[in-house]
Amino acid sequence: VRELALIEALERLVRSRGERIVCSLGDDAAVVRARPIAVASLDTVVEGVHFSLETHSAADVGHKALAAALSDLAGMGAEPGEAYVGLVLPPSATDDDGVAIMAAAEALAERAGVTIAGGDVSEGPALVVTVAVTGWADEPGDLVGRDGARAGDLVGVTGELGGSEGGRRLLEGVEAVLPGEIAEALVRRHRRPEPRLAAGAALARAGASAMIDVSDGVATDARHVAERSAAAVTVELDRLPLAPGVEEVARAAGERPDALGAAGGEDFELLVCAARDRRESLERAAAEAGSTLTWIGEVGPGRGLTLSGPGGEARGLAGFEHGRARRPG
Amino acid sequence: VRELALIEALERLVRSRGERIVCSLGDDAAVVRARPIAVASLDTVVEGVHFSLETHSAADVGHKALAAALSDLAGMGAEPGEAYVGLVLPPSATDDDGVAIMAAAEALAERAGVTIAGGDVSEGPALVVTVAVTGWADEPGDLVGRDGARAGDLVGVTGELGGSEGGRRLLEGVEAVLPGEIAEALVRRHRRPEPRLAAGAALARAGASAMIDVSDGVATDARHVAERSAAAVTVELDRLPLAPGVEEVARAAGERPDALGAAGGEDFELLVCAARDRRESLERAAAEAGSTLTWIGEVGPGRGLTLSGPGGEARGLAGFEHGRARRPG
Repeated sequence: VRELALIEALERLVRSRGERIVCSLGDDAAVVRARPIAVASLDTVVEGVHFSLETHSAADVGHKALAAALSDLAGMGAEPGEAYVGLVLPPSATDDDGVAIMAAAEALAERAGVTIAGGDVSEGPALVVTVAVTGWADEPGDLVGRDGARAGDLVGVTGELGGSEGGRRLLEGVEAVLPGEIAEALVRRHRRPEPRLAAGAALARAGASAMIDVSDGVATDARHVAERSAAAVTVELDRLPLAPGVEEVARAAGERPDALGAAGGEDFELLVCAARDRRESLERAAAEAGSTLTWIGEVGPGRGLTLSGPGGEARGLAGFEHGRARRPG
Repeated sequence: VRELALIEALERLVRSRGERIVCSLGDDAAVVRARPIAVASLDTVVEGVHFSLETHSAADVGHKALAAALSDLAGMGAEPGEAYVGLVLPPSATDDDGVAIMAAAEALAERAGVTIAGGDVSEGPALVVTVAVTGWADEPGDLVGRDGARAGDLVGVTGELGGSEGGRRLLEGVEAVLPGEIAEALVRRHRRPEPRLAAGAALARAGASAMIDVSDGVATDARHVAERSAAAVTVELDRLPLAPGVEEVARAAGERPDALGAAGGEDFELLVCAARDRRESLERAAAEAGSTLTWIGEVGPGRGLTLSGPGGEARGLAGFEHGRARRPG
């Protein structure tokens, strides 16, 4: 019965957006007018694995789960469409927690022009939020996969890196000497990441050859691009655009700032590759989408990923990858 | 690292089906050629809530999670398209369990013509499987919602009822005197339900006015149709097509067989309404889809659900609803 009352409360707080929704909640399934190409992804976040409720509010979790799923659409350059949210609530969660999760997701959905068109609520031993998203495009060529990087391309990244990981370290108790507003910005970056939907669409239109959202850290995500493109990607660590405060947090934690920036996950920026003659066009596209683009490397002949550090080729940097550890934060 | 090896194993065992898939695994999101109307739903099953691993194998869970999600598409009359599977695996689950879950889902997907086009694997405290499905249609009018029942319509149900609940009771230890093959069929019905995709599409084409998949028991699902259609639905309990063995299980459990048939969830049959002049057309459609159709009630003026028992109007039958209790089984 809890479930029914909660479902009604959740249904009341979500709104249909745009002309595509024929019907959403209340039937077996949502009915949506499609565009020619559907782009779809599903992401799950689990309490105690991807986040801790000691450092995240229910609203943070709802926001972050939808943000992570929408970031996959941004990484393809797709127009975001609908989201479907599966909630597993532990006995310790109140109905208000359920409402807070969905209200935060709905607030992000509104800014992104997305409709939360369906979902599911269950009980379970821990908070689990699964978000499936659908985006749209007119043809496959309007989208950008991970597999299009070619020798000679430049490698760029939007925005700033390491902010989410820096915020996570602060929440874990790392004591960095930082102005309050910078520390707050890092923590907010960790709790409330923003999917780069406008930048993704703009970079796709501007001729990106390959793109991926930076969910696992640029080192790991650049390797995904290298593998899928069968190309050699070099990332120069001293060019990474670190978020303000990341350097201080890294030093307080006894780590190299570039390592933290390369390995830190959940920034949800976009790593993008493009032919050199597209350089200015991509920079302009990022700027028009309210973002920045920093060139951090290049694509060469061969295969694999090279992380190039200030002291030359950084062989011992394998540990930079998979920085998005499976631990709460 | 377990996660990466498992993801690779899972990716190896799923296949793309049909002409719609442009690309599926390995990128940020799947890319699919759409038809004009998308139909989408998401379902979550949780260990200890929707099933117990004492009575279900990992393969049963994988099958059932996809079957429940596809059943929502059947209830709309949509053509099934793609599925996206989110797995949360507890420490006690092996990689082989993860593979068994996905292999069983893939086997059902193959029979249903569905492509498992994406997913997510996480660790967590219990086994949770979330399945998002997308189906397709050419126009909204080709689909059948819960809201189209009109006074004068007949109410029918496909196949047999109570089989899943009967199987669940046997697994719980109810001792009914039954031939072995009938007991096995009940248990199989509980562990491996089949979504009525062909019947749903055929009934929609044949002119059904309202339709819903029977996931929570006909009593509850008929009430959903009554509420959404703003109509009065009467279901005559002595007309319910009980699966063989349900009567014996109910008596062994000290319950009325019609109550078990009305309240038992997870049969995943279809409850359908249609104008009387469509009667033969719907019967033929069900038969051609390899199913049966039993008329169990009618739609009248007014609102709400009436369960009509052998002793007249069955007022004390409110407890028949929400039979799909939130307990393992």
